[in-house]
Amino acid sequence: MHFALITKILGILLMVFSFTMAPPVAIAYWYNDGSEMAFLAAFAVIFLLGLGMWLPVWRHRAELQTRDGFLVVTLFWTVLGVIGGIPFLFNPALDISITDAVFESVSGLTTTGATVLSGLDALPKSLLFYRQQLQWLGGMGIIVLAIAILPMLGVGGMQLYKAETPGPMKEAKLTPRIAETAKALWFLYVAFTILCAVLYRAAGMDWFDAVAHSFSTISTGGFSTHDASMAHFDSPTIDMIASLFILIGAMSFTLHFAAFRSRSLRAYVLDPEFRFFIGLLTIYITMVAVGLWVYDHYHHNAGTTLRHAIFQVMSFSTGTGLTSTNMAAWPTYVLYFLVLTSFIGGCAGSTGGGMKVIRSALVFHHSLRELRRLIYPSGVFAVGFGNRSTDDRVLQAVWGFVGVYIMLAVIFTMIFIMTGLDPGTALATSAASLNNVGQGIAGVASGFGDITDFAKWMMCFAMLLGRLEVFTMLVLFMPLFWRQ
Amino acid sequence: MHFALITKILGILLMVFSFTMAPPVAIAYWYNDGSEMAFLAAFAVIFLLGLGMWLPVWRHRAELQTRDGFLVVTLFWTVLGVIGGIPFLFNPALDISITDAVFESVSGLTTTGATVLSGLDALPKSLLFYRQQLQWLGGMGIIVLAIAILPMLGVGGMQLYKAETPGPMKEAKLTPRIAETAKALWFLYVAFTILCAVLYRAAGMDWFDAVAHSFSTISTGGFSTHDASMAHFDSPTIDMIASLFILIGAMSFTLHFAAFRSRSLRAYVLDPEFRFFIGLLTIYITMVAVGLWVYDHYHHNAGTTLRHAIFQVMSFSTGTGLTSTNMAAWPTYVLYFLVLTSFIGGCAGSTGGGMKVIRSALVFHHSLRELRRLIYPSGVFAVGFGNRSTDDRVLQAVWGFVGVYIMLAVIFTMIFIMTGLDPGTALATSAASLNNVGQGIAGVASGFGDITDFAKWMMCFAMLLGRLEVFTMLVLFMPLFWRQ
Ligand SMILES: [K+]
Ligand SMILES: [K+]
Repeated sequence: MHFALITKILGILLMVFSFTMAPPVAIAYWYNDGSEMAFLAAFAVIFLLGLGMWLPVWRHRAELQTRDGFLVVTLFWTVLGVIGGIPFLFNPALDISITDAVFESVSGLTTTGATVLSGLDALPKSLLFYRQQLQWLGGMGIIVLAIAILPMLGVGGMQLYKAETPGPMKEAKLTPRIAETAKALWFLYVAFTILCAVLYRAAGMDWFDAVAHSFSTISTGGFSTHDASMAHFDSPTIDMIASLFILIGAMSFTLHFAAFRSRSLRAYVLDPEFRFFIGLLTIYITMVAVGLWVYDHYHHNAGTTLRHAIFQVMSFSTGTGLTSTNMAAWPTYVLYFLVLTSFIGGCAGSTGGGMKVIRSALVFHHSLRELRRLIYPSGVFAVGFGNRSTDDRVLQAVWGFVGVYIMLAVIFTMIFIMTGLDPGTALATSAASLNNVGQGIAGVASGFGDITDFAKWMMCFAMLLGRLEVFTMLVLFMPLFWRQ
Repeated sequence: MHFALITKILGILLMVFSFTMAPPVAIAYWYNDGSEMAFLAAFAVIFLLGLGMWLPVWRHRAELQTRDGFLVVTLFWTVLGVIGGIPFLFNPALDISITDAVFESVSGLTTTGATVLSGLDALPKSLLFYRQQLQWLGGMGIIVLAIAILPMLGVGGMQLYKAETPGPMKEAKLTPRIAETAKALWFLYVAFTILCAVLYRAAGMDWFDAVAHSFSTISTGGFSTHDASMAHFDSPTIDMIASLFILIGAMSFTLHFAAFRSRSLRAYVLDPEFRFFIGLLTIYITMVAVGLWVYDHYHHNAGTTLRHAIFQVMSFSTGTGLTSTNMAAWPTYVLYFLVLTSFIGGCAGSTGGGMKVIRSALVFHHSLRELRRLIYPSGVFAVGFGNRSTDDRVLQAVWGFVGVYIMLAVIFTMIFIMTGLDPGTALATSAASLNNVGQGIAGVASGFGDITDFAKWMMCFAMLLGRLEVFTMLVLFMPLFWRQ
């Protein structure tokens, strides 16, 4: 392990991160909301911290090895998560504990969007902007992590799958160098963000809210500048725009890149994961709409029922967590159904949460194959997507991932029960954090401010695990990893 | 599909089953409890039903094919489950709906032990005996099903695993003919039952209770003749005997046979599944005892804490469901932990429930291997038990099984939420039925009499699915199965 090199990288990271205090400082001046000194102080502290780490080792040169990658990636998110809490601590408008500050920061960066704050509407604009910006930056990080870094590390079986992908994906094969990949992906990410913000503005938001919500929409983050989230605007048009950009955020950015390069939507139509995803969303929306209808939640108003069914399915299943209505009053069955959909989550290579559509689809197809094999024991049934079949090694990696993921969900649920939550709320808390949804139901429907500090730290752990596709972080707990 | 042949087999089955009314009739006379005519009527109806099925096709001869096996096995348990409800319907001491009668019968035969009856202590002895006998017969059926029939059908990946087993299992390779296998296994089953009954009697039960409880102990069934279950006797000795015979029932009967043939306990010591099982039980007991201790449930009385921790772990994790104490008052965390252990369940080839220890162990080892593979991508890590490694085909079958099983648990939980149960109770109900535990917690801690009729039928379906290792029944829902 190259500890000096890793320290150097983290030092640079912190110095770069410190400059992200600039937009909040500018906004604090503009709105004169009294937070400018707090953000400047945070800038100074974070920059000096980074400098302090970088200086003693800045001459150190070495090549990172694959194995260092696990540590760097995990530290990257853990350290930024903790340090990102400083502006919350320093802000004069908040009286917040260290636990809550770190929670809010980790929740932002991992694009989870769970919050311990209430009375958002009354907070300084600059602080609200900082929260949204955390999610947007987190989203940028996740795309590069999922598309360029984790496959290099071999996490979750996707590298094998994508590597042998013929068709649209292969054409779109991104240049292997992380920097190049990142630039191409970020260009799209920024473009989508601007488009989303402009549309929000056109639909009636003011510029501040439009930009702020574009940040947490494309990143499937889910933070809002209002306690009521999207229900604050109560606009079907805004809900539709949000649904569209949530969908874009929850799709593979490799796919966006392929479509962009070919200047055609054909790539989308041909992509098997995307098609499966659309199929799933259709089923989800039908189930939720029927559920709301049967329980007569919106007095059999088809338009309202469908509007909120579509929005909440898009928001919950992808792990975004924005709300267009008082979801806490929805029927229990519908709520837990939404919680389940979040385990499947968005597409691989997106900002979405959960286990990812492609893994769920492979696991589903494989289970069907086992049933077919019972009927024709010597038959050959391929598992795969579209015309492709998947080799056994990929299936093993995917099953390993899914198995570990479910075990973790169960373990976190047990832990949350131990901290005093009822079983239903504990499951919701586990899903909200591990799947990076952020929106709770039942006992945590209105936020996580009331759970114990221990539960909050456990949620931070779960959010990071979920965001880092669990294996990245879990290998660090294996003695084998540290053996030379 | 040989429908005539299948009808013939079911007809014979019903005629044979009708004779199992004989012991209850004898007991009804002995205790003069007023049920003899009801059981005689049930005998007549069931016998004539069987005769009516058998007569038109009795000349029909054909060889059963593997594919018929799925249908025969499923019909066997479904038809017996329904028909076994007749004695409940006819009994003058009960005023019971058809739903409840079938529920009680299916719950008995599948060795689930969930009950809709209350006031057991006041019921006719003959009826109580009939319930216990259902479980005992169910246990006999399950052993043969799990060891001789399902492997032939290729369900759940165990056939592949066992086929390549060197060591103690191979030596004990049972004769492939079902009848021979059945005889050998049943001999052991009967011997264990007698031993258990004698020990119960020696520990203070009367003969009736001793036999009745030996039936539901060795079959890991869990029915009792008392509302308070084993807590009625409040005897540490009886608890210990029960724990021992629950363990025996939840171990592979192939393994018992190997030990019996070699007249040595070496087979047990060498068996990797049994060793893993003992390891799991030790962990469970520790967790539960610590949980009870921390929550100060038994006023820090170490003896009482350990006694009930051992008994309830043995009873719940194996899917037996007898209770030695008022478990409903236990801390929530401990209760849901027990629910989770029941998903792993007993060993393959036992009367125990759940996914089975060997599958859980393979899945666990495989997940660990995937983590190791991240660290050494080109390393070769075998997944297996003891010295054996497992080929990929077995892993695939096992993962397919585990995946489908968990999906079913989730779907049933959602269904039970839809019928109005709270999420925690719904999960407990799903586990109690699918894992064939029978003992509920939370809202169904004292039985299933109050859930809706629809929920009861769903439980029957789940009990049968669980008992038939899910795939046996699920293939029947595939169009491919019915295609010629
Ligand atoms: K989110
Ligand atoms: K049972």
